[in-house]
Order: sequence, then C-alpha cells, then structure tokens
Amino acid sequence: MAAGRGDGAGAVNGLAGLLATVFDRRYMGAAGSDGRSIETLCKALMAARDEISGMELARRVLDRYGTLTAGARAAFFAFLARDMEIEADAAASALAAYRADPGPETHARLMAASEPPRQELARRLNRVPGATARIVSMQADLRRAAQDDPSLRVVQADLVHLLRSWFNRGFLVLRPINWDSPASILQKIIEYEAVHTIDDWDDLRRRLQPPDRRCFAFFHPAMPDEPLIFVEVALTRGIPGAIGDVLAEDRKALPVEDADTAVFYSISNCQPGLGGVSFGNLLIKQVVADLTAELPRLRTFVTLSPVPGLAVWMDVAGLSPGDADLRALAAHFLLRVRRGDLPRDPVARFHLGNGATIHDIHADADPSEAGQAQSHGVMVNYLYDPARIGRNLEDLPKGRIAASRTVQALARQAPISETTQ
Amino acid sequence: MAAGRGDGAGAVNGLAGLLATVFDRRYMGAAGSDGRSIETLCKALMAARDEISGMELARRVLDRYGTLTAGARAAFFAFLARDMEIEADAAASALAAYRADPGPETHARLMAASEPPRQELARRLNRVPGATARIVSMQADLRRAAQDDPSLRVVQADLVHLLRSWFNRGFLVLRPINWDSPASILQKIIEYEAVHTIDDWDDLRRRLQPPDRRCFAFFHPAMPDEPLIFVEVALTRGIPGAIGDVLAEDRKALPVEDADTAVFYSISNCQPGLGGVSFGNLLIKQVVADLTAELPRLRTFVTLSPVPGLAVWMDVAGLSPGDADLRALAAHFLLRVRRGDLPRDPVARFHLGNGATIHDIHADADPSEAGQAQSHGVMVNYLYDPARIGRNLEDLPKGRIAASRTVQALARQAPISETTQ
Amino acid sequence: MAAGRGDGAGAVNGLAGLLATVFDRRYMGAAGSDGRSIETLCKALMAARDEISGMELARRVLDRYGTLTAGARAAFFAFLARDMEIEADAAASALAAYRADPGPETHARLMAASEPPRQELARRLNRVPGATARIVSMQADLRRAAQDDPSLRVVQADLVHLLRSWFNRGFLVLRPINWDSPASILQKIIEYEAVHTIDDWDDLRRRLQPPDRRCFAFFHPAMPDEPLIFVEVALTRGIPGAIGDVLAEDRKALPVEDADTAVFYSISNCQPGLGGVSFGNLLIKQVVADLTAELPRLRTFVTLSPVPGLAVWMDVAGLSPGDADLRALAAHFLLRVRRGDLPRDPVARFHLGNGATIHDIHADADPSEAGQAQSHGVMVNYLYDPARIGRNLEDLPKGRIAASRTVQALARQAPISETTQ
Amino acid sequence: MAAGRGDGAGAVNGLAGLLATVFDRRYMGAAGSDGRSIETLCKALMAARDEISGMELARRVLDRYGTLTAGARAAFFAFLARDMEIEADAAASALAAYRADPGPETHARLMAASEPPRQELARRLNRVPGATARIVSMQADLRRAAQDDPSLRVVQADLVHLLRSWFNRGFLVLRPINWDSPASILQKIIEYEAVHTIDDWDDLRRRLQPPDRRCFAFFHPAMPDEPLIFVEVALTRGIPGAIGDVLAEDRKALPVEDADTAVFYSISNCQPGLGGVSFGNLLIKQVVADLTAELPRLRTFVTLSPVPGLAVWMDVAGLSPGDADLRALAAHFLLRVRRGDLPRDPVARFHLGNGATIHDIHADADPSEAGQAQSHGVMVNYLYDPARIGRNLEDLPKGRIAASRTVQALARQAPISETTQ
Repeated sequence: MAAGRGDGAGAVNGLAGLLATVFDRRYMGAAGSDGRSIETLCKALMAARDEISGMELARRVLDRYGTLTAGARAAFFAFLARDMEIEADAAASALAAYRADPGPETHARLMAASEPPRQELARRLNRVPGATARIVSMQADLRRAAQDDPSLRVVQADLVHLLRSWFNRGFLVLRPINWDSPASILQKIIEYEAVHTIDDWDDLRRRLQPPDRRCFAFFHPAMPDEPLIFVEVALTRGIPGAIGDVLAEDRKALPVEDADTAVFYSISNCQPGLGGVSFGNLLIKQVVADLTAELPRLRTFVTLSPVPGLAVWMDVAGLSPGDADLRALAAHFLLRVRRGDLPRDPVARFHLGNGATIHDIHADADPSEAGQAQSHGVMVNYLYDPARIGRNLEDLPKGRIAASRTVQALARQAPISETTQ
Repeated sequence: MAAGRGDGAGAVNGLAGLLATVFDRRYMGAAGSDGRSIETLCKALMAARDEISGMELARRVLDRYGTLTAGARAAFFAFLARDMEIEADAAASALAAYRADPGPETHARLMAASEPPRQELARRLNRVPGATARIVSMQADLRRAAQDDPSLRVVQADLVHLLRSWFNRGFLVLRPINWDSPASILQKIIEYEAVHTIDDWDDLRRRLQPPDRRCFAFFHPAMPDEPLIFVEVALTRGIPGAIGDVLAEDRKALPVEDADTAVFYSISNCQPGLGGVSFGNLLIKQVVADLTAELPRLRTFVTLSPVPGLAVWMDVAGLSPGDADLRALAAHFLLRVRRGDLPRDPVARFHLGNGATIHDIHADADPSEAGQAQSHGVMVNYLYDPARIGRNLEDLPKGRIAASRTVQALARQAPISETTQ
Repeated sequence: MAAGRGDGAGAVNGLAGLLATVFDRRYMGAAGSDGRSIETLCKALMAARDEISGMELARRVLDRYGTLTAGARAAFFAFLARDMEIEADAAASALAAYRADPGPETHARLMAASEPPRQELARRLNRVPGATARIVSMQADLRRAAQDDPSLRVVQADLVHLLRSWFNRGFLVLRPINWDSPASILQKIIEYEAVHTIDDWDDLRRRLQPPDRRCFAFFHPAMPDEPLIFVEVALTRGIPGAIGDVLAEDRKALPVEDADTAVFYSISNCQPGLGGVSFGNLLIKQVVADLTAELPRLRTFVTLSPVPGLAVWMDVAGLSPGDADLRALAAHFLLRVRRGDLPRDPVARFHLGNGATIHDIHADADPSEAGQAQSHGVMVNYLYDPARIGRNLEDLPKGRIAASRTVQALARQAPISETTQ
Repeated sequence: MAAGRGDGAGAVNGLAGLLATVFDRRYMGAAGSDGRSIETLCKALMAARDEISGMELARRVLDRYGTLTAGARAAFFAFLARDMEIEADAAASALAAYRADPGPETHARLMAASEPPRQELARRLNRVPGATARIVSMQADLRRAAQDDPSLRVVQADLVHLLRSWFNRGFLVLRPINWDSPASILQKIIEYEAVHTIDDWDDLRRRLQPPDRRCFAFFHPAMPDEPLIFVEVALTRGIPGAIGDVLAEDRKALPVEDADTAVFYSISNCQPGLGGVSFGNLLIKQVVADLTAELPRLRTFVTLSPVPGLAVWMDVAGLSPGDADLRALAAHFLLRVRRGDLPRDPVARFHLGNGATIHDIHADADPSEAGQAQSHGVMVNYLYDPARIGRNLEDLPKGRIAASRTVQALARQAPISETTQ
C-alpha cells in the first residue's frame, strides 16, 4: 500500500511521465499543434485501437479540458450527456437478443449496450499519470454545472458510479497527519478544514503537535498529495462539553497515558468531486481501531459535533433561543424532527447512520460565528460504543433513534407538542 | 539507512486490521460461529445497510470461500451466474421507462437494472483489507471453471470488466526488481517466470545483479506483494541473436555506458486471474521511457522472443525442421499465416499489436527443451522504434505487417506456395 | 535509532526505547530515586564494567544535566575541566616507559594516559538513544560558558575534537528541503535562517515551492530531526546583483530549463554546539554536484553574499557611505584589508578559503536593516568555478586573492592609500 | 530524484558521488595519471589545506589501497606504524610545557602531539562516500597482518580506538531481517552465519519466514548494506534442549501467541575489521526490549549455545566423551575452568559477562560436525533474566558465576578433583 513511500516513486513517475511524453510525441506530433476540438479528441480516444496512442490522446483531452472557457466547458458537458449516452434502440435490441437466447455472447452485447460510453471514456482518460485527480476535479465542475442544468445529472451519476468503484475502501490508505507531515499536505488541511476554521500555521500546530492531539486522513494511492477526508481527534480525560476546552490556545497538554477518551471534534471532506462517495463512517471505524491498538486505555470514543440544522428549524418553527432551554429544544429536534427514519439534521443523520448514540447535548458550547449562526452554540456528543453499534443499526429501520437517558429526558422537557413540528 | 518506511506502514496496517477485526466481532459475534452458507452470506452482504456490518460480512464471505470444497465452489459459481444476474424483465421495464421519459431518475433505474448484482457484490467484498488479491485469485478459479462450464463465462466477463477498471494503468506502479528487492518478491519472480525458467537463486542473481541487467514489474497498490507482470532486460552492444548469449553463466558484464541496445528477453504475466486485462504493451512503453531517462545512449529497443506457434503449424502443414531454411519458414509463418489482420503466432500478435516491427529471425537460438519443442529453436527480434510505431499501427488494419527487408526477403524464400498455408 | 524518516520505524523505536527503560529499571531501580549528584553518576559511569548498566547510568547523567540550575551546571563544567583531565604525572610516566621501550603495551598505556577521560565519558553518554543531539546541546552551553571562563576551553576543545570525528563528512547525509518536507523540519529552517530572515510560512513557501528555488541541508543520522547547515539556492538567468530580485514576493518563477545560473543566496549554520566543525564548503561542493546532475544546463555557480565586516571597518577607518563609491571601498576592503593571507571579512574568508573568486560587487543591493547596518547595502558575488578552484587555493598562501578584473579595477579606484588601512 | 525507498537515497548519493568525482577531476587531473605512491598520497592528504582537494586525495588513497600487492600492502602498514606514529620528543616537549603552564594553548599542543597522525589520516579518508566500509576492511587486513608482525599492533589499536567511537551504540540502527529484506542483505546473512551453517536459500527461508522465527541485525548508517552482527531467534513454548528441534526442516510453526520463550540460537559477528568493538550484549538487550514490546506474553529469554572450548579442554585434561556424564563434565568446565573471574569458554565468557545465568546443559544436542568436534554435541541455555542481571554482574568480580541449581548439581557430580583442572 504505502501511499507514502512515494516521494521517490512520485519523482520517478514524474520523470517517466516526462519521458513518456517525449516518446509519444516522437510519433504523434506535438500536442500543441493539435487543432481538434475536445469532442473530436474524445471520439478519437474512443476509437483508438492501441493503448499507446490512446494514452497520448487521453493526455490531450485532459490538457485541453484545463484550458476550456466556461462556455466550451458547458458544451463539453452537454456532449458527454448527449453523445456519450447509451443508444436506447441498441440497448433494446441487445436486451431482446439476450432474452431470446441468454448466453455469453448475448450477455456481452447487452452489457456493452447498457453502459454509457462516457464510462469507458473516463477509464481511458485515467491511464495518464496523474489523471485520477483531474477526473475528480472535472466531476466537481460537473456537479456545480448539474445544479443549474438537470440534463447533466446523468453524467454526474455515471461518474459517481465509477468513482465509487475506484475509491472503494480496499484501495484507500489511512495515514496519520502530524507535525512531521509534508507542509504541502498540511497546507491542504488548513484549506479544507470545514468545521472549526484553522486560523494559521500556529493554530494548525496546536492541533497536531501536542501528544494528546491526533489527526488521520484517507488517501488514494493515485492521488498521494490529496487528502480525501480527515478527522481531528483530541485525547481527553472525560467527555468535553465545549469546543473551547478543546481548542484553547493556552491549554496544557494531557499526558497521553492519562487519557481515557478520544473526541472526534472535526471531520472534513476534502474533495467536492467525490460527493456521493462516502468515507466518513469507514474513517471513524478505522481510527477507533488504530487508536485502540496504540492506546489500550482509551475507553470512550465520542464526537463533539455541531447541530447545523437547528437554527433554521427553530426559525421556521417560530422559536427563539431565549424561548426555552436550548438543550431541550435541540434534543427534541434531534429525536423528533426527522426525514424518514433518521433526524433531519445532517450531522445527526451521519453519526446515527453509523450506529452511534446521541450521548449528551451542551448549550453555550461553540461561540464561533458559524456555531452561533447555525447551531445557536449547541454541540452534541455522539457516542461510538462498539457494544451498541449493531443494535442501534438494527433499531433504526424500526424508527428508534439511540439516545442516552439524559437526552431522552431533555427531549421530553421541550415545550413543543408532537404535532407542531 | 531508512529501516524501510514501508515495513512500518505494513505493520501498522496489519495491526489495525487485527484490531478492526476485534472491533467488528465485539458486536458481530465470532465468524467461526456463523453457520450460514456462503450464498446466504452474500445475500446478507448485498442487503447490508451500513458499511461496517457489510465489511464484516464481506470478510466472512472471503474466509468462507477459502474453505470451500470443489463441489461447494462450483455451486457458488453457479449461484453467481444465476442468482446474481440481471433480471431481464426488470431491465426491460426500466429501459421502456427510460425511452418514454429520458431523465436522471429513469436513467438511474436503467443503470441499476442493467448491471448484474455480482458487480456490486465484488465491490463490497473489496472493502476488506487484502481483498483485492483474493478476488483476483477467485477470478483465476472462475476462469478454470468456465472452461468446462460455459454458463460461468458471464460471471467471468463481468469480473474482467470490473478488474479492468480497478487495474487501470493510472493505478499501476512500475517498480524496478533487482538484487536489493525483498526476497519474498524475488521468490515470486522465480515462480512466475514463464519464458526462460529460472533454475535457482544463483540463476536469478545472474539476471538481476550485473549492471547490464534490469527487470521491471507492474504492481497494484492494493496488492503490494504481488507482481502483475514483469519484463527482464539485457543491456547489450548490438542486437543478440541467441538466448544463450544473454543467459550464459560465465559471461562478463558489459560496462553500462557501452550499451546501445536494450533487449526485452522475457515477459511474464503473473496473475492468471487478471487474464483479459492487458498490461504488456504499457509495461514495455514505460520501461522504454525509464531506461531512456537513465541511459540516454540507448538507441535500440528490441525483443528476443520465441515463436511458440511455429512447431504446431509446421506439424500441421507437414513440414519438418530439416525440410527448408528454418528462418525462411518462420518468416513465412509470421508474415503470411494469420488470424484476422495479425499473425496466428501469439507472441507476434502481441508485439505487432503494440506497433513493433519484425526485425530479424534467428535459427539455433534457443536450445532449451521448450524452445525446441515449440519454436524449433527459432527466435525473433521485434523492434520497438518510436519513429515507426504510429505508422505500423495504422498499417495493421490494411493487412500490412511491419517487417524489415531481411525478414521480407526470408519470407519470399520459403518454399511454400501462398495457397498451401 | 532508525536514521530514516520512517514514522513506522520511529514509533517502534519509541516503544522499544520505552521498553528498554523498563528493562533497565527492573534491575537498576527507578532513576527518580537516584539521589547521587551528576558528578557521582559520571564517575559511576566511568567505572561501569558492563555496557548495560552503563547505559542506564548514561541516561541518568543526561536526564540530570537537563535539570541542572545555572550554578550546578557551572560546577559540572568545572568538574569536567578539573576531574576529567589527563593526569600529567601518569602521562609523563607512560611517555617515559614508551620512549624506553616502544611497543604495543607501552603505546597502549601512553594512549590511555594521554586522552582526557571526558572523551570516554562523552562516548559512553552517547550510547543512549537520542544522546548525540543532547551532547551537541551541552557543547553549546559549554561554548557560552567558556567565553567567560577560559579554564573551560580545554573541555570545549576536547568535545570539538570528538564531534569532528562523529560529524565527519562520511557520516553526513545531504537532503533536499522543499515544500514536501516535514513541517517540523521547516519550522527549524524558519528559526535557523541567519542571513535573510524568513518572515512567516508564506515567505518560506516562496523560497521552497517555486520550481526555480532549491534548498539543501546536511543531516546526521543520529539527529534526523535537526538540520546541521542549509543553503538556499535560486536558479536564475544571469547573475543577480540585488537580493530584492531574488526574494521579491510577486516575482514570476523562471522555467527551470531556462536557468543557467545557481545562486547560493543564504547559508546558515544551525547548531551552535557544532561550532568548530566546518560543513559549509562540503555543502556547497555537494550541492554543485547534485544540481549539475539534475540540471546539466547550469553553467555558473555563484553566491549573493553580504559583506558583514564592511560597516565596522569603514567606521574605524573614518569613512562614510557618502564619501566615495561604495563598490570601490568594498573592493578595497575585500582585497586589501586582511587577517593573514585572507580578507578580514568573515564571509569572504569562508568563500575564498573554499577556492571561490570575488566576481562582482553591488551597491544598493540589500535594503534590509541588517544589510544596511553591517554592509551598507553592499552585496558580493563569489564565483565557484571548478576550473579555477585548485589554482585559487594554491595562490592563497602566496597572498594572492582571486578576483575578477572588474573587482580588481574597483579596488584600484578606492580613494585610500595603501598605508592608511 | 530518489528512485526507490531507501534505495533512492543510495542512488542519489551514488550519482552525486559520481558527479563529485567529475567536479574534482576538472581541477585535480585524472586519478589514473597520478603516479605518486600511496605513502606520498597520504602525506599530501595530511598536508591538504582545504577539504575539497583533500577529499580527492582521500579517494585516491582508498582506490590505490585496493590495488596494492601483498608486499606493497605490508610496506604501507609499516609506513602507518612508523611514519604516522607520535613523535616522542615532541610529545615530551608538549607535556613539559603543559605541566609548566596548564592552559588551553598548552593543552591543545599536548593533545595534538599525543595523537598518532594515522588517526587524523583515517578521519580524512572517511570523508569519501563509502569510505567507512573500506576502512573497516583495511582494518581486517591489518589485524591479519598484525598476527605475524607485532609492530603493526599499535596501528591496529589506534584504529580500534577510532572505530569504537564511530560505531558507538548511539549511531547503530537495529533492523529486523526477514523474508521481505533485500536479497543482497540476506545473501550476506547466509555468508556470515558462523554458528549453524545456512545451507541454501530454502534453509534461510525456514529461519526467517515462519511467524515463530525472528532475526535482527545492527547496521551503521554509513554502511547500510553491511550487517555488523545478527542474532537468530526462535519463539517457542518452553526451553528447547537441542538445536535439531529448532532447525528441523519439517517442523510445524508455533502460533506466535502461544510462545512464552525467545531462544537466541545463533549470534554471528559479520565484520572481522570490527574485532574489538563489542556489539553482542547491546544487540541482545535491544532485541529483548523489542520482542517484549511486540509480544508481551514472552516470559523467558534464553540462548541455545555451543561450548566451543569443551573438546579441547577435555582433550588436554585427558578426558574422553565416554568417560563420564558429558553434562557433568560441561558443568564443571563452565563453572570451574576459568580465565580470571570468568570461564575459559569464550561463549560462556560472553553471556556471563552480560549478566546471564547458566540455566541448563544438554548432551546430544548438536549433531553437526562442528558441534561434535568442538562441543561433543553439548549445548547450553544461558538465561537472560532482567531481575537477576544486575546481581549477577555484581557477583562476577567476587568470583561467583551465576548458575541454576541443576547446573550446580551437575558440576558437583563431575568426577574431577578441584586440583586436577
């Protein structure tokens, strides 16, 4: 695995890539002189008989994509949606043939006819060194574009399908992020942190260097410089009830052998292009396993999470922070206000969907601007208790949300009739 | 120095894997006590709502697979062919809905209905650490079984489709294999060498340690201990015409700065389970690029290859080695005896399909038992000339096979009328 | 242990170190309970028959040293000077025996009697993992103390002798420092930069990340986290005449293939405890070799250096910056104002002592506070020309300082009679 | 750059070394044309003012040394003994000056006069990349030569002094040796194994690959390809009494979690040039620490060792294997037949000097030719019990050898009067 080995490997690949280019161009002509449109290049790539000329064409497509104007990009996406779609007639004919005589040949024809050619296009593009990150980035563009143009959603969905296969858990590598990590990676951690902003390198250092702080990220070997998702962990004695305790500039580090609790206080997805490919639950699971191996004294694995849906819901429900006990309101919101079996709040959906329990709710826990605006300062501990995860997951389809007695009691105190939600 | 970064990572992953198991079993029950059949476990895995319980189920499926009797394995493959097939009625209904109203929802339904569920099964199995190698091994079993039972070919084809995506060039890593490589890898090189048997570790050392010898292999990051394909290279002055010159025990190594030619004298695929996923052309291309980077004085890239189809063809054609100039017969065989546009000989198909040129043909070039039995001792140099590869590839569909004048002249000398092939 | 980066290895070593401690204490008693003075511990360490109990004693000495008050530290240094000195009578007697009968036994006795025991003490201390950095740090303390107390200079000199042997060039490792280096190392680069202050991480990034910027440092395997000396390099087209050109925030990076010159614009020693062990000339030499290997188009290797002795000398000589052409004054200062054969200016001494040539002198080249205060803004290019280094070095003892015609002409223009220096 | 893992560093250094050579030769003239004798080159090296020309001279000395005839080598050693010795008169004069006025200057003069110049010569030679291994190899030659020519012993002693400093424990790296280690290292393990011959690669694999087998070696960062000393370990249930149990070809590996004992069954020094620099006790100590960290269930650390002095002693004492119980004779030999405080047997001296206890003695334990010839098949378990090591070491100077009651009882049964030893 070892995504890490890699500086060396990366360098060699870079060099080899350079040379490969030279090699290609000796019989392909310089890319610069290629006046064909990106659509024409894609068609040539799909028609390429051999992988070597295909590889050079793929490189040109990716290079060209990087230079497209907004308009040309929209046209390219429309091309992917329209010209790289399955042909329904061919699919129908292949399906009829398969039904008439199911066998290897008819099955193969059906499979070929049922897969939109843009999937094969993406696979061919991916042969170029460094292509994976560029395809992920293209998908990020596509997601934005599809918000305005629903006809692109089929392209986006096809790419999600492919990326789920490529970014399968079996291919991911968990790496600790610490003060010995490359600055180029740390710079991305600063940039990608989505929950509790990292102000600068000193702030980052406070989160990585003390012995009672940890950070882990998933990487994909084909994108060794790009974290996919990361979690920041505080090792504590007891469960903290406010983010200020965790992030205080002047706090004294806890000797690691005194810690009994690991607090997941920030989880950030890094790649908009990988939306729809879920990593979070596997990350938490793996980090619990790794920390348990390293620090057998850890007993409790818990989050300190915002309730980002709380303020909006209260607003809509006509409730103000002063109206009632915020903890009770939040408990009600998390336990009673649902979408399907799960709470409406996205963070709660995520952790409960992983089998966690709502363990405790704290008011005045997050004084940051975002924390006030979205959660009215409320924070929640979701508990990951291996002994309960299985049962919690079984209970979910029955409409039962796992919560401690404290939280259940709080919900009952909320001055809201069940019917007014 | 550096005690081996990788080992560290490996150890941690191993430990984490162990712990992950512990973590799972604390709420899943021990795998040993699970009396469900592998088919039932697969269905449970497909039904699993969350990835964590799914991961434990996947582990059980893979563990169970490893213990199946021949009969149970056949039954499991039949289950994959029959119960994990698309439902043709559902596919037809989804296709009709899509044709009536093409849009994201109908497209998504169609995609789901058109993909055999065994693809998703394989993706879910792959979440387990180390699963990729086990899936590749399962595919090797399946390929053997499908030779006798054509109904399994659809399963095999689906897995090839998935493995092509997973083993896309963009995910492969080229690594040099040399006398500093881990013994565990070298042992596999000895085992997998398919062209010129490696007798023992001393023989291996003669092929790896001298400065005028190189070896390169493709690896996949999820199978770091398993070479996928490797090529052995001799750096020479001029083009050799017999394998004995290359492999002689007592030969004197050439100072590397005197070499002008790189000879690919052995290419071996290592993973039967990756049949249908082609690596060879990309390997040669990458090695040419890397060697050019390291040794700019290299001018010629050439193979020294057997003609494994020669003896059988001569036999069928009623020709004996003594009947005529073997070189002429071989030239005729390679240029005139075809399947489609390409020669019938599999090695020739491979190199010509990569754009190489038949450069020269040698008799009495391979005294080994296999070399005598299959090729009557004939060997061929296929030339990889960057300046000609593109043209050669364009010529192929026109029925023109690239060959040097020498070889063309040899073919004309063959005492065979065009019609008697 | 593990010289390498190897997080894995590091972790294991950390653990092993921990365990080793446990192992020791099981038969040594806890260090905490050891009430003996550091001097007594040192004597016990010198008397230890076996290396294992010696190792635990060494650890205690080092731990104890870290806790000494200023007074206790002075007493400890006095102990090293007085009680760990050679015994002159014993040395005299050993020398007499050797002269009377030179042979292995008398030689061995003489060698033992002639080496101050503090050298063996340092070697025994160094057996503890991580001890080397602590001994270097102790030497830094000692150097400071010896400035006030000349009696400590013998201790300092003995340690320099030992450290020169341990930090021999054959044991040093050159590593590139770039934006992929560990943040913990980069933080030290910021801290140790002694010539052109690095303002913050953004400033550092501008010096490391662009393709036309390089940085290299020497490390010792036993102190893998501590750079010993580093040099910052700018790749340029032509020789720059002002530091502002090199460090401009908004400058555009030069494509690396257009560079013909490597400019060493900052060299910083990092370890005060390694004063007296010279690395700088070997660093420059090695970097020239490495850059030449990577970028064969580089033709010119040159510094952009301050003249830190200029302002003081002008002051003493009664000269003001406005009095005359600063370039001429600087040329005069560098060529004519000497200590021994070499210039009085320390930077000039260093580069000329390495065989460099004074190539050019620039006024208004360094607007920084330090540059103004020490050098009146003057900067110098010292040229490292492989074809001239040997001759330059031979000329030095003859009193000839290598300088370009430009610089020689400048020196002649200086309005200073030879006698007024 | 860095092609591989650690290899990378090696490759870069190799390349840099190459370039450094080019750089040197551009102003030094080619080494080939240097007709000076090795003695003259050494004198030039000692006189070199700058480190860069010194480095080139050092390279020439080392290259020249490699080409010396036996006679020239003897002459060179004689030169080192005679011309690189201290000057007794100068030393006497420096000592007198120091006694008259002890201070930094007189101390420095005395130190300089008291150190034979060959020490500085070795330090200067060591600046060349790769020099350390060549100096160690030179010392191996010297040790052989000094056996015949006592006048060389002073040179040998000076080099031992220097090598002890360079190969100080603080600079050594412990690395596990296993089936994933580079073949180039494993080949040396086969070659250097001195106790129980490794027949071939299959035999090696049986000692490294099973989960209940371990091997560890010390390395020096400047000789990364050369193990200094290694130990082979078997993890067992209970203490084995015969080497056959450990090395049996067809034995079944023990699940590692069932092991309670680690058996050090072979320790081999690899570098004759490092004779006099002891590593063995530190190796055992570190391996105990590392194994305890990895496998906390291990309770017993024990050797299975030969008694190489037994046969010779019995022969001299007129005893034959059939005369009496071999175990009793061996116990007597180990406990009563001494040189100083320690047994005469070298293996016993080593382990008892480390604080081990003679735990048990076995007859018919080693059927190998060497085992029969030297030890009459007897093997001994030396026990490393952390709780006893300290006491054992304190007892040694009092003449008390630590042995179990069993062994003490055996010794009493030996049919030998105390006086006849």
